[in-house]
Amino acid sequence: MKAAAPSLQCPFQTIGVIAKQGETAKTRLAIQHLASCLRQRRLRVRFDPLAAALVGAPEDLALEPAAMGQICDLAITVGGDGTLLGAARALADSGIPLLGINLGRLGFLADLPTQAIETCLAPILAGEFDAEERFLLAARVNGDPPLLALNDVVIHKWNTARMIELETLIDGIFANRQRGDGIIVATPTGSTAYALSGGGPLIHPALDAIALVPICPHTLSNRPLVVGGHSHIEIRADSAHDQGHVIVTCDGQADVFLTAESSVQIERAPHPIRLLHPKGHDHFQILRAKLGWAGHPAGLNAV
Amino acid sequence: MKAAAPSLQCPFQTIGVIAKQGETAKTRLAIQHLASCLRQRRLRVRFDPLAAALVGAPEDLALEPAAMGQICDLAITVGGDGTLLGAARALADSGIPLLGINLGRLGFLADLPTQAIETCLAPILAGEFDAEERFLLAARVNGDPPLLALNDVVIHKWNTARMIELETLIDGIFANRQRGDGIIVATPTGSTAYALSGGGPLIHPALDAIALVPICPHTLSNRPLVVGGHSHIEIRADSAHDQGHVIVTCDGQADVFLTAESSVQIERAPHPIRLLHPKGHDHFQILRAKLGWAGHPAGLNAV
Amino acid sequence: MKAAAPSLQCPFQTIGVIAKQGETAKTRLAIQHLASCLRQRRLRVRFDPLAAALVGAPEDLALEPAAMGQICDLAITVGGDGTLLGAARALADSGIPLLGINLGRLGFLADLPTQAIETCLAPILAGEFDAEERFLLAARVNGDPPLLALNDVVIHKWNTARMIELETLIDGIFANRQRGDGIIVATPTGSTAYALSGGGPLIHPALDAIALVPICPHTLSNRPLVVGGHSHIEIRADSAHDQGHVIVTCDGQADVFLTAESSVQIERAPHPIRLLHPKGHDHFQILRAKLGWAGHPAGLNAV
Amino acid sequence: MKAAAPSLQCPFQTIGVIAKQGETAKTRLAIQHLASCLRQRRLRVRFDPLAAALVGAPEDLALEPAAMGQICDLAITVGGDGTLLGAARALADSGIPLLGINLGRLGFLADLPTQAIETCLAPILAGEFDAEERFLLAARVNGDPPLLALNDVVIHKWNTARMIELETLIDGIFANRQRGDGIIVATPTGSTAYALSGGGPLIHPALDAIALVPICPHTLSNRPLVVGGHSHIEIRADSAHDQGHVIVTCDGQADVFLTAESSVQIERAPHPIRLLHPKGHDHFQILRAKLGWAGHPAGLNAV
Repeated sequence: MKAAAPSLQCPFQTIGVIAKQGETAKTRLAIQHLASCLRQRRLRVRFDPLAAALVGAPEDLALEPAAMGQICDLAITVGGDGTLLGAARALADSGIPLLGINLGRLGFLADLPTQAIETCLAPILAGEFDAEERFLLAARVNGDPPLLALNDVVIHKWNTARMIELETLIDGIFANRQRGDGIIVATPTGSTAYALSGGGPLIHPALDAIALVPICPHTLSNRPLVVGGHSHIEIRADSAHDQGHVIVTCDGQADVFLTAESSVQIERAPHPIRLLHPKGHDHFQILRAKLGWAGHPAGLNAV
Repeated sequence: MKAAAPSLQCPFQTIGVIAKQGETAKTRLAIQHLASCLRQRRLRVRFDPLAAALVGAPEDLALEPAAMGQICDLAITVGGDGTLLGAARALADSGIPLLGINLGRLGFLADLPTQAIETCLAPILAGEFDAEERFLLAARVNGDPPLLALNDVVIHKWNTARMIELETLIDGIFANRQRGDGIIVATPTGSTAYALSGGGPLIHPALDAIALVPICPHTLSNRPLVVGGHSHIEIRADSAHDQGHVIVTCDGQADVFLTAESSVQIERAPHPIRLLHPKGHDHFQILRAKLGWAGHPAGLNAV
Repeated sequence: MKAAAPSLQCPFQTIGVIAKQGETAKTRLAIQHLASCLRQRRLRVRFDPLAAALVGAPEDLALEPAAMGQICDLAITVGGDGTLLGAARALADSGIPLLGINLGRLGFLADLPTQAIETCLAPILAGEFDAEERFLLAARVNGDPPLLALNDVVIHKWNTARMIELETLIDGIFANRQRGDGIIVATPTGSTAYALSGGGPLIHPALDAIALVPICPHTLSNRPLVVGGHSHIEIRADSAHDQGHVIVTCDGQADVFLTAESSVQIERAPHPIRLLHPKGHDHFQILRAKLGWAGHPAGLNAV
Repeated sequence: MKAAAPSLQCPFQTIGVIAKQGETAKTRLAIQHLASCLRQRRLRVRFDPLAAALVGAPEDLALEPAAMGQICDLAITVGGDGTLLGAARALADSGIPLLGINLGRLGFLADLPTQAIETCLAPILAGEFDAEERFLLAARVNGDPPLLALNDVVIHKWNTARMIELETLIDGIFANRQRGDGIIVATPTGSTAYALSGGGPLIHPALDAIALVPICPHTLSNRPLVVGGHSHIEIRADSAHDQGHVIVTCDGQADVFLTAESSVQIERAPHPIRLLHPKGHDHFQILRAKLGWAGHPAGLNAV
């Protein structure tokens, strides 16, 4: 799962910097600090338009995230897990690795604290890091180009207070028809996000698996289902009755309606992203910190 | 639910002090400090045998908790919620109020911090406090005297890895037969304890209700059930098959086996306990603190 | 909870008939049969406009459900639980009792099977029935007239894939702030509906209690909460951020947006409905039938 | 996952028959019928001691299940999933395939109905079947020989009403410490058994994964965790406090105590079992049948 990087020579020459949406002083300061760290090491820096505006970078250094794959050999996001999710979708096809600086609380994905940018960055730029691959899902509706998701593809009710009815097929085999608020199709990465709120299990990031988590299912035995990561999942809006009320959302971006005649086809995307972490990265340590699993359990009424 | 106390005259003359089981320096120091506070106010103090031993009190000041009801007009527990649970069962019939000092983290019931005994105690002894009633359950097996529980009566498997089968009647009407690890019958007080771990709801302490929470039920639609606090609940071990493997536990004390011929009858106990709190007691504040509901939600992967 | 009716004299003289929306042959036949049964007994019959159209009743016999309270002394719905829910909201203030004929599967509320209308109806019209009261919730947003709900008032996200943030106050005391898809505020009647899908407990219909069930809460310790039936519940959309994305839905009818400046106030409605059942009505029998709790548990992999 | 068998020549010459424990007329009749079917095809039949006694087979045809691997090339169990679980543990190392006849309701594993033994068996004996592999877990405590489990290894409280405290390591990395009733470590096969009752997800049988499901965890964020099937899982009883109260149970057989000094090491067993099914075996069809997922959802209160 983790691969030690080769040498102390910096394996990265040009680095793209991507900012969290919504300008704040905090983001600006962090990007300025980051850019100065990178330049001290004589690395070339490019900025996404938002970051460029924030730090007043010259126009020729600004670059859309999706275009960074051609020019950069590392992308660093400054924000939170949401910023990294967006960058992952934009850069998945390029193959360049991603590193996330978190401006606030520790993220599941963005685990480099803003207070220690320089300290944490130095060894990483010297090639000392842990790397792991995280796969994305590709969702196809009709003949449209696939939508990517690093967390989840959610098929859910929209603009209605009624339940919707969905039919699921796994590798072409009918699994079930269910009524409820929808279904969350999540990667291991997404298993700590919306799927967890919906009652899904935590899935180890190294496991090649996909979770299907029903949202408020009408039938109580409609429980979360975990299938192989290379499964082909098809979800159909079952009835004309729900027309205009079933939508497909990728990583929280409401994207495209599902009609009674269409279906969404979900599969592992062809290219995973490569996520960099400071050496010694420990997934369970992050789970403990984020979920309050600390040594001293959080405390119910003692018996 | 809350009643202001009448005056600044101390409404309590003789006070019983009950210690947490398992001697520790911390408990001893807290009891010494408490006793000295009480004596400064010229109040009479009695100790349960454990507390008496801890502080080296003369023999004639030692008193079993169950006997404190005759002599004391307030009992103070020093420990945690578990210590208060035990005192509540021992003193339920006496009608004297209870106050809990917690040696460690904030308790659901014992909410007077050991670091601030003097500050918190002064107004309470002057009659300035909030009081609330909490009801107990009385569980009868065969003709035996009832067992009391402030949190819960649990009917569960014992000494077996197999499921047990139980039959539930509410006010004499058959509710269901279920297989699993057992059933938790909980008061509102107990709804934050084992019942919560088993998937039961939080019940407001002022609500006259009882929760029946199945433990790992074999049938997924066997969900927690909330009935009126004056319901008569009967639970039967359904088959001779489970003989010797079904036990009734009250507040975590494994008590009596349920045979195929017997059943357990559970009802609200005749006398509630009266729990004292510092003025301004807020149940939701305690829930927020204990369950990590703080203003800044505990944090999953942001979308 | 149940009151035997006085005599064999028919306590009802004029009966309103309310049809399920969406014309079907089945509904028409059932209403024709019902009307003929009632007329044989020389009872006066009125029809809601839908039912009137279905059976070709003269115009002067048609009456809006909400107007039936003035003229009728019993309303019979022909459809399912949804039809009865609608009638209950329309007739709650009138005080006339309701009886539900279910065209399909057994309902939680409408428990008179269409195949046995005559057999079941005869004793009821002769005054032999069980009656129970079910309370409704009244939801007020701003100064608007209250919306009624027999099942639930749901405050949920609308037209967005993002979480919303809600703040709850119980009797004016801040309970918590939570992020997620929303909150279901359910009566005991509604505890078998959407609230159950969301993980809420079953609440006995005779219990004076309200359940607050978070929908896919971001914080895992945000568990269902049961409070007294006379509680005043206030839910605020916490931030301007969610403007236009928080809606209040009563019994599945999306009704009114909640703005950052407004809040919804939920209380027990002043008048409960009176629901009639065939003699010997047994709530647990219905639960067993609807939830598959039959004697032979539904069956997981045997150990 | 499925492999068509080579030819119409019977691939099996000697067949072992294993009976459900607890004699019943039904079991005897089914075994007699099965034996006669097999003999008509001139196949050799061996019986486990129980089956031999039931049908009065000569002593030299009786064989312990664990010894069948040397002599038989197929084992058929007559009973339910429990009978097949036992046979799987006994025969896992031998590599011979297993076929399950279910005497009662459809099983997850034993899916050949007793009413149609002859019809279903004919094509299977002619080599027309679907085969799938299911892995077992091997649990080692101290230096003892490993215990096998096809469903689950459960580490749980024993002979106590108190919570126990367990520490989990995955591939040598500390995952968490948790308090509660225990932990279920389940294979995909076991994901429809106890783990499901405990809130775990359904795992597709073809997925190489293991679920860790906490039983009534004290900390509400201790959620089910799914890790790779080749993970090495270590669970420690955390404190001397629980001495004598933590036991390891494999497939429902309480086996060995865990002491404060010992730990249980759980890994995929070296040999999977090979399970035969009638052609056209469909895992989702069985899930739908067993979990009540039929086309017409089980039905809550309609909105």
